[in-house]
Formats: sequence, structure tokens, C-alpha cells
Amino acid sequence: MDSVFIVGVGMTKIGRFYEQSARELFSQALWKAIEDAGGVKPKALVVGNMMSSVLMNQDSLGALLADYAGLRGIPAFKVEAACGSGGAALYAGYAMIKAGITDVVAVGGIEKQTEATTPYVTRALAQAADADFEVFYGVSFTGLNAMIARLYMQLFGYSEEDLSHWPLKMHEYASYNPYAQLPRKTSMKEILESPIIADPIRLFHAAPLGDGAAAVLLVRGEERAREIAKSTGRDTLVELAGIGMATDSVDLASRNNILVMESTVKATQEALKMAGLSLKDIDYAEIHDAFHITGYAALEDIGFAPKGEAPKLFKEGRFQKGDKPEVNFSGGLKARGHPVGATGIYQVVESVMQLRGDFPGFKASNPATALTHNIGGVSTIAVVSVLKRWR
Amino acid sequence: MDSVFIVGVGMTKIGRFYEQSARELFSQALWKAIEDAGGVKPKALVVGNMMSSVLMNQDSLGALLADYAGLRGIPAFKVEAACGSGGAALYAGYAMIKAGITDVVAVGGIEKQTEATTPYVTRALAQAADADFEVFYGVSFTGLNAMIARLYMQLFGYSEEDLSHWPLKMHEYASYNPYAQLPRKTSMKEILESPIIADPIRLFHAAPLGDGAAAVLLVRGEERAREIAKSTGRDTLVELAGIGMATDSVDLASRNNILVMESTVKATQEALKMAGLSLKDIDYAEIHDAFHITGYAALEDIGFAPKGEAPKLFKEGRFQKGDKPEVNFSGGLKARGHPVGATGIYQVVESVMQLRGDFPGFKASNPATALTHNIGGVSTIAVVSVLKRWR
Repeated sequence: MDSVFIVGVGMTKIGRFYEQSARELFSQALWKAIEDAGGVKPKALVVGNMMSSVLMNQDSLGALLADYAGLRGIPAFKVEAACGSGGAALYAGYAMIKAGITDVVAVGGIEKQTEATTPYVTRALAQAADADFEVFYGVSFTGLNAMIARLYMQLFGYSEEDLSHWPLKMHEYASYNPYAQLPRKTSMKEILESPIIADPIRLFHAAPLGDGAAAVLLVRGEERAREIAKSTGRDTLVELAGIGMATDSVDLASRNNILVMESTVKATQEALKMAGLSLKDIDYAEIHDAFHITGYAALEDIGFAPKGEAPKLFKEGRFQKGDKPEVNFSGGLKARGHPVGATGIYQVVESVMQLRGDFPGFKASNPATALTHNIGGVSTIAVVSVLKRWR
Repeated sequence: MDSVFIVGVGMTKIGRFYEQSARELFSQALWKAIEDAGGVKPKALVVGNMMSSVLMNQDSLGALLADYAGLRGIPAFKVEAACGSGGAALYAGYAMIKAGITDVVAVGGIEKQTEATTPYVTRALAQAADADFEVFYGVSFTGLNAMIARLYMQLFGYSEEDLSHWPLKMHEYASYNPYAQLPRKTSMKEILESPIIADPIRLFHAAPLGDGAAAVLLVRGEERAREIAKSTGRDTLVELAGIGMATDSVDLASRNNILVMESTVKATQEALKMAGLSLKDIDYAEIHDAFHITGYAALEDIGFAPKGEAPKLFKEGRFQKGDKPEVNFSGGLKARGHPVGATGIYQVVESVMQLRGDFPGFKASNPATALTHNIGGVSTIAVVSVLKRWR
């Protein structure tokens, strides 16, 4: 039996931590995961990160973080896939465990955006887009998403207010999440009066900039996973039952249809196939909502909602408490926060906790399966994972 | 049977290609590998790269390169481990194939250093060192290696000329290599009169800055590998029989002994153990000689020479034509060139060609086994692979 299990999870609160370095933050998350697994130490580390090269002038990040965490010498490297770096790191770590080349892998994500001022971070985030064919002409990453949002609103007849129910709800969820960057409720008025970043995207339609780190520990085989669970007093195992990755063009201009994130469609199919599940089996999901439009598009392209209907369904109460699936009770990128390269790992940590029943925020209704959806760029890369609870 | 085989290899000439973009260079190398494998297309791509974020303002590199090469949609991500990025990408790609989550993986490396001026590239290369505890104080990456070289010379009683036999020979080998950046012989006089970069390291003791891309295709199982070899008219298979990765502290100050690259020692042991070989079984090696001192230290820490004796042995003719092992007939990083994130893949491409007998430069003596050694930083990370020829 070579199933892969997530035996430990850890994360830091997300915020603007001017007085903590990336290595300090990451070490905290990693050691929480190690303690969560009853002290089992990883034999290898894969770390997802987008911006250390540009904002911290630091490469060799894998070795640096392993060493600072007291694990000097283990195999360790960084994976970069823009905002999908965390998900891509999980994919690489899954392969390492599945291949049996090591028996405990830590997969982490870290982003430290407060190393630089906001204009500089905005420029760094734009590196998710095509430097030669998009950014060269002056567009920001929010600008690209604004074009998609505008087209979506025109095509499907949604108003600015229609799309604002997403952030409204995400802030409510985040108000229960002790790890969230923005743990407070908002109002439709506050959202609609917040400043425009790139028309029609306002400040409250977008994820905040923040620092954070998260980590998970993977092992192979039920026996090992049971042994670790037992040592921590848990009777629940969480299997990483499926993982899918797909990519798309970086530049939007060469896509077939900018309203369909094809890589999200493909990665979802791959992950479900590997897990032997269909979409209707999914009880809980954490999806990538860097902007309100991204959250709706994710619901549609994963397959939870027909194209053009996600805002309507969400406004009617779908994907909320008691529905199937329940979505983003962490508060999502919007309000839990979006420490770029760590986001894909936060989603997995939160989903594992929901499956185990120990998420300290807004609780899902006893889910047995979960799906996480992490993208880089405008779904230039998508990584979808499927988790199963074992009793 | 789940052995992993390298069924196709490709590389570009290394040089200063101002008129070609990274995506163009990489596509050439990848398609050479695809053609070399009789047209078999990869289902996933892992790319090693250090500096695209800083020099090209480009992240999302995996998806970008896959798309430009005509492979839009496949799983694709970037791995960063400074100058060891290529080796680390190979490690991730090996895990993906070994795990069976895809059946043909391309692992590539690309660096485009001519996107910026030399002072800027020098700063970017220093990102391999510790930004907070080394580079902050003004040291360059060559400066760190210069301290090691000085200590080594003092401790073991070597002169500048003693250490200069390495570059002298590397230039001779490179003069036969059509892919080399510096395909010309040099002289002891030219080496010793070349400008000092960081005392005692002179220009001709160091690898040049250059652009280049290389790629290999991996498959699992002898049957598949035989089928591909047959379609290309080859009767030789090359197995990626072992791969080891280890790390060390990034900053030199916290190491036990800066003259021993402990990660190189460990990674070599891991790779040999996985391959079921001992060091004396190795016929051919491509090792990481970013500076003359690095080449000698690599010979020693891999275990080919006792500590302190590599320069003496090399000067006496060891590791050269007819010896076991024969080392760096490509010309090494010194003269073949060192397109940073691609270097670890160049080494594998060249070693595969030596095992198949079709390397177009200075030929090894019909080797049946080969070892490649790729490091990032001062062996902050080391990746060692062991290749076996099957007939």
C-alpha cells in the first residue's frame, strides 16, 4: 500500500511582519508541522516561493530554510510557479514520497512581501505575467485580472455589487480565523467605496499583500501514518489521494478564451481521476480567489458551477455552510490573506484541519473529502489536490 | 522493472546570445532532445534556472517555456537552487518518473545572463550566498571562493601556478567541444597574466558568464527505453541509476570546515548507494568547477583524491585520458561554460553522449559508467547522479 498521507501541518498567522525574517517565519511553520506529527522530522524539504530572489536578493532558499530550521544537510530546493509555487512544491514533494526516494518529506511555502515597498512588490507580482509581451507594455497583474472581470461583467450582465458578495462573505469567514491577515467583517458599503486599483477591481475585491509560511509533512503507507497518528492521539488519517497540475500560456492574448482557465479544468480532472472520485464527491474546497473574479472563475472552471452562474449562485447562498461543497471557510486569499508562494500550502493545511475537525476558525460540516485549488498567474499554472479522510 | 532511462538529450552552444531570448534558446535544446528520442514528446517539464526572476523579470518560467516549445498545457514548473538548479530539477524530474505520475518527463536548464550587464549579473550570482549574513557585508561570490582558495593554498603549500593546471587542461578539452563557450587553448602565461577578480582568483581561474540551455528526456522501464532506442537506431540505453542530493549551510562562517564540501560527500554516497556502485566503478565524471579551487575540491570531496592532493595528482596526469575516472572532457564550467541553472543538465547530456559514444568533442575511453556533480553556492547544495550504460 503506497498511499501518501499528510501527517503534520503548521502555519503562521499572516500579516505584515517587519521584524521577522523569512527564515524565522518559515521555521515557525515547519516546527509546528513537526510537532503536529508528534516530532517526526522531515528527511527532505521542498519549498514554494515566488519572490525571494527579487525582494530578498536571496536564492539557495531551500538549503537556507532547512539549515535555519535545524535540519542542515537534508535535500532541499525551491520551486517557483508564481502564486502557484506552493501547489507546485506539493506536486514535487508528492512525487518524491510516492517514488520512495525518501520517507518523510516536508513541503512548505513562504513569502515575505514586507521586504519591499508596495510599488516594488506590485512590480514583482507582475513577474507572474509575460515580461516581454505583457508587462513591457505597462500592465500590472491586477490590470490583467481587471480586463477579465470587465469582460465577465459585460458578458453575463453582472454589476459591481453582484460580484462583491464574494469578498463580503470571505471577510465574515476570516473573522473567525486566528491565522487570517484580515480577521474582520466588512460591509457592501465599505467594499463599494474602497479605492479602485484597476477598474473594475477595488481594494476590497483583491487579496492583501502579506507575509506568511505554512508547511505539511508527507509520508507513504498507511502503517506509518497510523503509527504517527496514534502517537499524537488522533484516530483520523488524511490521504493526499490525488494531485493534478496543468499549465497554460502566460500571456492572455494567446489564449482561446480568457474567461476559461483551461489549466484549472485539466488539473481538476487529473486530481479527481488519481483519487478515484468525481466532483460531486467533494465535501469541502479551498479555492484560489486572488480577486473576486478569480474566485468565481475557479468555482466555474473546477466545475462546481456552470460558466457565468457562480456569482448568482453564491449570492443565493450556494457553497456556504451546509452546502456541498462548502468553500473557503478560511476566508480565502481575499481575507485569510495571500502570502504568494505559501498560499497553496495554507489551503492544504486548512483543508487537513477541516477533515480532522480541528480547524480553529469557521468549521465545515464534518467533511470526508476536500479539494484545494492553487493557481499561478491567471491560471498559467493550476495545481489541484484531493484529500480523503480515513478513519 | 522500474529503472529510469535517459532517452533523449539536447543542448545549445554556450555563448553570449544577445539576439536570442531565453524561450528561444530553451526551445532549441528541448527540441533537440525530443528529436534525439525519435520524436517522443514530454508529458511534463521541470526546468532548472537561477536568475530569470532577477535578470529577466520573469517568473512562471515553467509554463512559459513549455508553451513556447509547443507543449502548452503540460505540468511545468521551475526549480531554483542557485548554480545547482539544473541538478535539483533532475532530482525532481527523476522523482516524477519514478513515482509513475507521468510517463515522459523533460528536465531542462536555462540561463540567460546577457539580459544584464556584468556588474548586475555579479550581484545576481551573489544571491547564491547568504543575503543577510554574507552579501550584506559586500562580498561577491568569487570573493567567497577566493577565501577558500587562499586557505587551501596556504594549508597544502600550493602556488598560483600549481592550481592553474586545471584551467589549462579544461581549455584544451573545450577546444574540441563544438558546444563550448571558450573553445580555444590557453597557456600558463595567459592564465597567470589574466586580471585578478578576487585575489587569488584570476579571470582564467573562473568560469565565464554565458547563455545556454540543455534538456534530457526521462522514461521509466527498460521496455519503453528499448523501443525508443530502437526507433533511433541505437543499441545503447543509458540508465539514471542513482541520484543524491544534500545541502549545507548557505553562509560559510557556520560550517565545520570550509575546505570540505560536506554536501558533496553526502550526495555522492547517496547516488552511489542507489546505483549499487562504489566510486572505483566510475569510468567518467563531469564535475562542477566554477573556479579552479572548486574543481580540485570536488575531486577530493567526491572521493577521487585525498584531501589536499588533487592539484598534485592532476598535474601528474591523473583524471585525464586513459585514467579512471576520466574527468570533464567537455572542458568543464571553466571552458565549456557555466550557464548557471543549465550547467547540471549540460553535464548529464555530455555524460550520456560519452556513454553512447557520440559526444562530438574530446572522447572518453568507452566508459560504461559516469558520475555528474553539480553544486549551488559553495556546495550549499550538491546533486550527484550516476549513469549506467546498458547494452
